Amino acid sequence: MKEFQLIAKYFTGRSQSRRDVQIGIGDDCALVTPAENKSIAISCDTLVENVHFYPDIPAKHLGYKSLAVNLSDLAAMGAEPAWMTLALTMPEVDETWLEQYTEGLFDVADYYGVSLIGGDTTRGTRAITITVHGQVPTDKALRRNTAQAGDWIYVTGTLGDSALGLDILRNKQQVPGQYESYLTHRHYRPTPRVLAGQSLRNLASSAIDISDGIVSDITHILKGSELGAVISVEDLPLSEAMQASVSNDEAIGYALTGGEDYELLFTIPEAQKGALETTLGQTGVKFTQIGQMTQGTSLRLLKDGESYIPANYSFEHF
Amino acid sequence: MKEFQLIAKYFTGRSQSRRDVQIGIGDDCALVTPAENKSIAISCDTLVENVHFYPDIPAKHLGYKSLAVNLSDLAAMGAEPAWMTLALTMPEVDETWLEQYTEGLFDVADYYGVSLIGGDTTRGTRAITITVHGQVPTDKALRRNTAQAGDWIYVTGTLGDSALGLDILRNKQQVPGQYESYLTHRHYRPTPRVLAGQSLRNLASSAIDISDGIVSDITHILKGSELGAVISVEDLPLSEAMQASVSNDEAIGYALTGGEDYELLFTIPEAQKGALETTLGQTGVKFTQIGQMTQGTSLRLLKDGESYIPANYSFEHF
Repeated sequence: MKEFQLIAKYFTGRSQSRRDVQIGIGDDCALVTPAENKSIAISCDTLVENVHFYPDIPAKHLGYKSLAVNLSDLAAMGAEPAWMTLALTMPEVDETWLEQYTEGLFDVADYYGVSLIGGDTTRGTRAITITVHGQVPTDKALRRNTAQAGDWIYVTGTLGDSALGLDILRNKQQVPGQYESYLTHRHYRPTPRVLAGQSLRNLASSAIDISDGIVSDITHILKGSELGAVISVEDLPLSEAMQASVSNDEAIGYALTGGEDYELLFTIPEAQKGALETTLGQTGVKFTQIGQMTQGTSLRLLKDGESYIPANYSFEHF
Repeated sequence: MKEFQLIAKYFTGRSQSRRDVQIGIGDDCALVTPAENKSIAISCDTLVENVHFYPDIPAKHLGYKSLAVNLSDLAAMGAEPAWMTLALTMPEVDETWLEQYTEGLFDVADYYGVSLIGGDTTRGTRAITITVHGQVPTDKALRRNTAQAGDWIYVTGTLGDSALGLDILRNKQQVPGQYESYLTHRHYRPTPRVLAGQSLRNLASSAIDISDGIVSDITHILKGSELGAVISVEDLPLSEAMQASVSNDEAIGYALTGGEDYELLFTIPEAQKGALETTLGQTGVKFTQIGQMTQGTSLRLLKDGESYIPANYSFEHF
């Protein structure tokens, strides 16, 4: 199948139409017109087979996840998703794979109102690069370098489920049967906290999404804001599935360093705690206070008031 | 070398700083603020080793070309380049390669005022996906579907040099020694017609860049505008190097179907021909009238008034 037919069959016309898109997919360039007084948040991620995903990931889940992880970056900035480009490299034109991949992709794109405006299809080792664009009122974007000492540290959702789900898929963990699909689903289909991110725009002093595990990701806020933090590991939100499947120490390990949760970690000034309960409460997203920003530059982990050293850290991914 | 160090050493701080970039490379998301009353043109291209480029391409030229081909898409729309993301996949961290690749990339980025605002580095078969963003006054972007019957067809520069240059590099052609480096340079370092594109915004009725050869690329204007065209092949602009190196029929073949010229093909209403001479003349870019838009839907090639059938067509690239 030739490139133009491929694009026409699987991509053109299946995408959300938006009034701010003057030229969408199929042209060499897309043309979009941002709303007035908005800045554009732009995030780009590449997923390569055997590096970021295993060949056995169902194509539908890969389609979902490849966009969801980019939307998570927009969520961390409080931006509203708008447009994306997709560069898809495939060893051959496999229509069954394409059908399922695009089903997963448009599931999440349509839900969040993202229009596919362009891209490229090429032959090679399977890889996916998505560049996603969101809009945020100028000067209202959530940043990493704006936390203050004394601000409270929160996370959305529960932590560690995705990493435990991956270990189940790789046969490194066995869990009670009733929790297996919940945990693998959390790995395959993370929920980008798009609405939560937008509702935090006037409340949070900083925010980041959790892609590498909170111990790694919070260091971006610490370095950016030139501060330290203390986290009480007994406050880390753990799912019922996590608590029923592994020991408490293992669970804390997954929560601290597991990665791929795509929850938000954010800081809230004391004066905004009440507003947070109201505003974020209305979105239906669970959120939990886990620590506090401090002077200094170190991250301290406490368990029942004592220093806590997790079994393993995971800081880098190249 | 870890990802964050890699980004810091080769990418952060080497990029053009622009006042409209609030958050640049190094964060999960970039944040930019477009100018008022501007639309954003977005183009995304992937280059994969052994598919779009040979492993022996000098890294510096690959760096230049990987951005230049994207800027050519912006030029065809009359947009002014602004920001880019780069997704770079490499089999290993080769610092010599990275040094040279980024030198070529920033050569062209700095020249055209493009700021690198984000991206991703991953391991795998060498591949480069660049998404480039340009600004164009709202409703002034050049389109493909707006040509009128009777409009004159023009191209910038000379045609076919890049394809002949590639054949020299692949040892498929031998040319007089004094022309060799000119022709291979035209293949490795095409000139995106950025300024010409912007100066055509109020003159041209349609425009496209020539990536696959004019016979293939003009069909996008024909289909979009629901028109035909006639092209006089004896009017195709050929470089001195081309004319001195191959037969006239071979030269016409390269010009029609060679591809990778990254010149602009555009249409001009009769009433704008005078203004074109003045405006495009001021940019110093050579331009040549090669034909005319017609009623109907066919592309006719004429040589000295007779129908002309080129030796081979090249329409698709997947």
